[in-house]
Amino acid sequence: MQKDWQALLYNNIPLSRAMQVSAQIIDDGRVRLTAPLAPNVNDKGTVFGGSLATLATLAGWVETQRLLDLAGLGAEAEIVIQHGETDYLLPVRSAFSAISQPQEPEALQRFLRQFERRGLARLAVKVEMVCEDELVARFQADYVAKRG
Amino acid sequence: MQKDWQALLYNNIPLSRAMQVSAQIIDDGRVRLTAPLAPNVNDKGTVFGGSLATLATLAGWVETQRLLDLAGLGAEAEIVIQHGETDYLLPVRSAFSAISQPQEPEALQRFLRQFERRGLARLAVKVEMVCEDELVARFQADYVAKRG
Repeated sequence: MQKDWQALLYNNIPLSRAMQVSAQIIDDGRVRLTAPLAPNVNDKGTVFGGSLATLATLAGWVETQRLLDLAGLGAEAEIVIQHGETDYLLPVRSAFSAISQPQEPEALQRFLRQFERRGLARLAVKVEMVCEDELVARFQADYVAKRG
Repeated sequence: MQKDWQALLYNNIPLSRAMQVSAQIIDDGRVRLTAPLAPNVNDKGTVFGGSLATLATLAGWVETQRLLDLAGLGAEAEIVIQHGETDYLLPVRSAFSAISQPQEPEALQRFLRQFERRGLARLAVKVEMVCEDELVARFQADYVAKRG
């Protein structure tokens, strides 16, 4: 049973509400975050780059929290982003989604082991952003989990 | 006489309004964008990383537009971000600002010359984010200006 991610985001991060972010759980348990064009539009009638970066930042944060939750470590973790970078590939003309990519098993185990031992660990997360089945942007980021 | 940047942002990018972004022109003509904590808060009571990246993305866009305006080329330019990356240095506990750093004269001249000749040019912009006079994050991005 996963968290109600949308409620969690809306209650804690008002910008996610302004962006009208919604969350869907996909087949393997990962979370797809989606946002509509209207509240995220720019001067060119396409999606504002800041909205893309922000949706990806949220998606990576959700994935880091979800992986800690799965390992039974999520309740004690506070997760912050340390570095994030976005490559903008195509203009985005309608609703867009962000999905974190699966972790390499070794990287995930190293992250969880280090968090358990030291209460401090860093995870690199890659996020793809899509619009109408087209890859429109790539995001990669480092998140740090600290024992709260 | 500069543009009314706040009005320009509010009328074209609704997320800037949700974030309550304001604009001040500083001594050398550059623009400082500022946003308060409340609409940009996260689950930890500090500023959400997505808000920091977004304010910086706006600041870099404003600076690129301003530099084209100064050269008399702004009216014909459409500016998009191609790559942006943020390093988060410190938690941010109150209102925060983003200021683009001055361009190297040679880089600026190359950008303007290329835009004039080809109608397509790329500018690298560095943005510093501060809170209560402390550097809290760094952002660097590439913006592409196209003749509209």
